[in-house]
Amino acid sequence: MTVRPSPQVGTPAGMRVLNQRAVLDRLRAGGPATRPQIAKDTGLSKPTVGQALLDLERRDLVRPIGRTTAGPGRSAMVYETNPAAGHVLGVDIGRRRIRAAVADLAGSVIARVDERNRCRTATTLVRTVKELAARTVADAGLVAEDVVVTVVGTPGVPDRSDRTLRHAPNLPGWERRGLLDDLEAELGPGLVVVENDANLAAVGEYAHGAARGVGVFVCLTVGTGLGMGIMVEGHLFRGANGAAGEVGYLPYGAEESVVDDLGRGRIEAAVSGDAVVALARDRGLAVKSAREVFALAKSGDERARAVVAAEADRLAHVVASVAAVVDPELVVLGGGVGGSADLLPGPIEEALCRITPLRPRVVAGALGDGAVLGGAIARALVSANDLVFDRKDAVTV
Amino acid sequence: MTVRPSPQVGTPAGMRVLNQRAVLDRLRAGGPATRPQIAKDTGLSKPTVGQALLDLERRDLVRPIGRTTAGPGRSAMVYETNPAAGHVLGVDIGRRRIRAAVADLAGSVIARVDERNRCRTATTLVRTVKELAARTVADAGLVAEDVVVTVVGTPGVPDRSDRTLRHAPNLPGWERRGLLDDLEAELGPGLVVVENDANLAAVGEYAHGAARGVGVFVCLTVGTGLGMGIMVEGHLFRGANGAAGEVGYLPYGAEESVVDDLGRGRIEAAVSGDAVVALARDRGLAVKSAREVFALAKSGDERARAVVAAEADRLAHVVASVAAVVDPELVVLGGGVGGSADLLPGPIEEALCRITPLRPRVVAGALGDGAVLGGAIARALVSANDLVFDRKDAVTV
Repeated sequence: MTVRPSPQVGTPAGMRVLNQRAVLDRLRAGGPATRPQIAKDTGLSKPTVGQALLDLERRDLVRPIGRTTAGPGRSAMVYETNPAAGHVLGVDIGRRRIRAAVADLAGSVIARVDERNRCRTATTLVRTVKELAARTVADAGLVAEDVVVTVVGTPGVPDRSDRTLRHAPNLPGWERRGLLDDLEAELGPGLVVVENDANLAAVGEYAHGAARGVGVFVCLTVGTGLGMGIMVEGHLFRGANGAAGEVGYLPYGAEESVVDDLGRGRIEAAVSGDAVVALARDRGLAVKSAREVFALAKSGDERARAVVAAEADRLAHVVASVAAVVDPELVVLGGGVGGSADLLPGPIEEALCRITPLRPRVVAGALGDGAVLGGAIARALVSANDLVFDRKDAVTV
Repeated sequence: MTVRPSPQVGTPAGMRVLNQRAVLDRLRAGGPATRPQIAKDTGLSKPTVGQALLDLERRDLVRPIGRTTAGPGRSAMVYETNPAAGHVLGVDIGRRRIRAAVADLAGSVIARVDERNRCRTATTLVRTVKELAARTVADAGLVAEDVVVTVVGTPGVPDRSDRTLRHAPNLPGWERRGLLDDLEAELGPGLVVVENDANLAAVGEYAHGAARGVGVFVCLTVGTGLGMGIMVEGHLFRGANGAAGEVGYLPYGAEESVVDDLGRGRIEAAVSGDAVVALARDRGLAVKSAREVFALAKSGDERARAVVAAEADRLAHVVASVAAVVDPELVVLGGGVGGSADLLPGPIEEALCRITPLRPRVVAGALGDGAVLGGAIARALVSANDLVFDRKDAVTV
């Protein structure tokens, strides 16, 4: 299968491709429809729609799914886009776990793999990701060539100019030169996009979660680290160098520098899962994870509740800082700490009322620990739909 | 002059209007040109361009400015847009001074008035602004009806829903209900737009100043208060409620609340002109204004230099916070404190190197205390060019 240049607009072949595209876009946006419905919605004539449907069916991009039965007149064939016309792969590389999922063009997940991240070097991590991706694709009954787009979520800020990830201190060796090239080489042959994981969580919550239809919102990911994605009218806001939302580097506390001696953001260290565990141990709780602390708080343990209140105050500091800069309508909490805890939004909103006149709504994310993967797939589908249309021979003459 | 609905596209009259618009846009974007040059650039035929130029000349929107002399063939008439086809008014309402300027459609300032703000109530301030605006228009040899668009810059966040300004504690009574209506009523009959002053300063520095062509930048206005405009690809980013850039409410210092007992942001109070004066007096300098402190520092006074260093450290805290959220490429400093001082950018950049891994470039604004007014006029011109084209009878039959 080779990628061919698009036929010229204005030529009969070009018109035919444009008509196919219009019909396909209508079916994607509006769901299954008959030829007369598509003609009405697109403004194309019924014979033109019929020809386009025939072309698209030959190219496996649409398929008939049955006939209408109700209503007057003859029954008509109903068409839908063919979700199996292509597949995408999403990968979420976290400090603790690595997740991968394959979805069809309708976004339905066909296979999903989730395992612990035990890697201690970048080399083993890249290899592990490759193996996990291959296993997921095989589980879906596919081969690597079926994957049109792979989107990889990872901590850090991808720098396209020198092909590295910057600001990723939580993954050993992950800032090494050429890492983006390694990932692309191992995860091809389709298009490979590497994206900040907190950004993808925001995309996921916008596509399927707690921020559907919200114009300006941020998604705070609190877990091993602290990250944030900013979405404006459905698009990620990345800043000048892709570092927008690197709120782990917000000023915090009495020390002048925003980072500690290891180069880690102080506020990140203060709100991460480790900090929640440390706070709990200080209060005599024998816990191993932030999740345990939140479970204890839910069951009414006073010491755990005090820890949650302290965590909420620290996160309110982050939210207050963000509100004074970008004025979001909504703050979605995600990640191992933020997302597992429906205990946090209330106390954070109360803290905001105490400390700032700027008070966005705060809610728990709806996608839990699947937000990054969901965002990776949503991001992949945007490109995949175009690529699938372009890569197959557009006109069958 | 009445506003008429635009003729329908697709009718001969509609085509004629579209052709006029294409020719006018070409002259605006590309400068003076002859009929053949315009035909080449727009793709219209020479007779069509000739007719459009005739129509536009009758409507006083373009004017001939002479003939070409060089080159082979007959000399051709050169046309330009008529800058006198309409005028705009910019107003900058500051705590200390009120400024107004009238410009023509080319942006050339024809009259400018600048006086102290001695008003202690919103009512007298609105009246003063009205008188100042009328005086400026009269100085320009115009009447109120000649002003197509007025843009007013003021502290605070305009809330279109309840017609108030929010977050404007530095102007007494300025947050009262219906203030936006009052300003519009007094400054008509043209279109009146009220905009946050720090936002307009950013627009000004983008249009004519230190941030020309910069994709993502912020303009920090430090003076009586602290404000910030965020520009992304030439457009203001306002957030969900217009409060983006209200960095006076950034967390700062050991106190939990970002505001003091008077509702004023602590960081705003810590970096404003008054704070610079207070710091200087603490060190035994008998100064009345921040400007004096900076002048002393320039002349080598050690105590004044220490004050400037302290101010730079505080502003670095603001810049570090902003960098961790929006990742600007450039930070432009403006306002009475920020803009008067080419002493600040260097020490701020040094402080950033100490405290954060995120280090945008920091520069002094190029427009000084004219940034808000320049932005108001730039903002007004965008609307004025459209309104002037639409308000005059589009087709002379």
